[in-house]
Amino acid sequence: MSILVVGSVAFDSIETPHGKVDHILGGAATHFSLAASYFTDVRVIAVVGEDFTPEHEAVFTKRGIDTDGIERAPGLTFHWTGAYSGSLNEAQTLGTDLNVFAAFEPKIPEAYLDSEYLFLANIDPVLQARVRAQMPDVKLVCGDTMNYWIADHVEKLKVVLRDLDVLLINDGETRMLAGENNIVRAAEKVMAMGPRSLVVKHGEYGATAFFSDRSFSGAASRPFRAPALPLAEVVDPTGAGDSFAGGFYGYIASQPELTPAVFRTALFYGGVMGSFAVERFGTERLQSVTSEEINTRFNLFREISHLDGLGG
Amino acid sequence: MSILVVGSVAFDSIETPHGKVDHILGGAATHFSLAASYFTDVRVIAVVGEDFTPEHEAVFTKRGIDTDGIERAPGLTFHWTGAYSGSLNEAQTLGTDLNVFAAFEPKIPEAYLDSEYLFLANIDPVLQARVRAQMPDVKLVCGDTMNYWIADHVEKLKVVLRDLDVLLINDGETRMLAGENNIVRAAEKVMAMGPRSLVVKHGEYGATAFFSDRSFSGAASRPFRAPALPLAEVVDPTGAGDSFAGGFYGYIASQPELTPAVFRTALFYGGVMGSFAVERFGTERLQSVTSEEINTRFNLFREISHLDGLGG
Repeated sequence: MSILVVGSVAFDSIETPHGKVDHILGGAATHFSLAASYFTDVRVIAVVGEDFTPEHEAVFTKRGIDTDGIERAPGLTFHWTGAYSGSLNEAQTLGTDLNVFAAFEPKIPEAYLDSEYLFLANIDPVLQARVRAQMPDVKLVCGDTMNYWIADHVEKLKVVLRDLDVLLINDGETRMLAGENNIVRAAEKVMAMGPRSLVVKHGEYGATAFFSDRSFSGAASRPFRAPALPLAEVVDPTGAGDSFAGGFYGYIASQPELTPAVFRTALFYGGVMGSFAVERFGTERLQSVTSEEINTRFNLFREISHLDGLGG
Repeated sequence: MSILVVGSVAFDSIETPHGKVDHILGGAATHFSLAASYFTDVRVIAVVGEDFTPEHEAVFTKRGIDTDGIERAPGLTFHWTGAYSGSLNEAQTLGTDLNVFAAFEPKIPEAYLDSEYLFLANIDPVLQARVRAQMPDVKLVCGDTMNYWIADHVEKLKVVLRDLDVLLINDGETRMLAGENNIVRAAEKVMAMGPRSLVVKHGEYGATAFFSDRSFSGAASRPFRAPALPLAEVVDPTGAGDSFAGGFYGYIASQPELTPAVFRTALFYGGVMGSFAVERFGTERLQSVTSEEINTRFNLFREISHLDGLGG
């Protein structure tokens, strides 16, 4: 079934201990849709400038991603400059040139209106809410956000949260949004704002899913912990969270029903796609990964976390 | 089979957001031996002062722990004062009165020499090495340490590491000891110093075990990730790491052989005992937990981390 994703398509200039790249294809919607494309059909709503070439578009179309919703505007594409050092856990933003993104008004093509799964990538919650309102009949809505919106635009964010099935968020953001240090109580407070479940990302430690009592059919109210793969080499962490989201939501959309077992498996696929994403700069690895590699790595995630997981 | 543990028996004065306690029974050897006592026989080498009463000793003996190796010295017992705030992840040490511990010379009673499992709790590596040398024929040696010894006494610590089967250590300590930010490469560097395997503790995110190629019979060289239980209430984190160690090593000592499956299960029991320890101040919870509660929580750890773990 089809996922509609709204978010940024961007150019990234990135420096990590492994090297430096300039103006490579990036953006939350890009990483998300590439990761999700291995599981289901994906349609993208975004805006790009005149510097977005047919070669850039081919990165999407080669993976079967529908780019009709990517609007061309006069000017330059959104450009992010960032650097990582030390343990690579946090990006230092050196520059954000919104360019054509500053005046972005998401328009949903007629042909996209039958999408059953909606993903609101990390953008202005006002835009997230506007897209959500135009898709009243979707089966499931999943959203992402970041500390910037929580710190300075929390009321706008709360409008989006009210109507969300799954919120993807990291530890620090969960605590900030809830005003509560204990992660279990913080998760409960955030779910009381709307989301039926929360996927709290812990970076190199994996993720924990929390479920409210309004959760998916038959879902246990207990949390679930999914591992991340310990990696000896992280070349570029940019887009790891969006790739996690793409693997997670892509797998969910590929299944007939969102059961607790599907939710758990989806968290593992999220980790799998995130682990591939960081192996190369930008989208390079997500363009070339194979279904066989994805399956092999899924089994590896199972093996490193399950008591009976020996073998392989 | 019997574990011999050498470490501190202490009095702790602790303040957390849940309250304040004064001079309650604590110390690494105390938390470790209580947690391990639910799995196997434990013998303690430590020193206490004249303020250590029969009531304090009864905490050990009620759990069947052999206290013949706890030496009585003139003066006061080691006293630690600490506080926790915020997310309770790190203790702030407010005072360390070594008292009788300052002149501690571990003496191993004759009857302890047939112990098959040795645990070197976090004390001066010089003392750890001295005890290790007196127990040349033990089946397995597991040790703990802390940032203080890594920062200021690393050469003495390296003597202990050379002869260790399992080192328990946290993320930051692993990185500090290896001089390497990436945790996988850091673990490899630390294992090259001696330990055949490493259990890296991540606090609220669980633990990761790494195995060298000199590892236990048939052990895969791949790491293993064990979860921690997301807890809505942490009353006092003091001793959580030692309780983890006690559950982990106690389970290993209760099994005929250290197989990869036993190692994995032991990591889960470590998490289980750590999760009980923090529910009350000091050793209160570890004095009263039942085998049934331990089994129930073990199943909960499995449920929250295994793809097929639904139920219960």
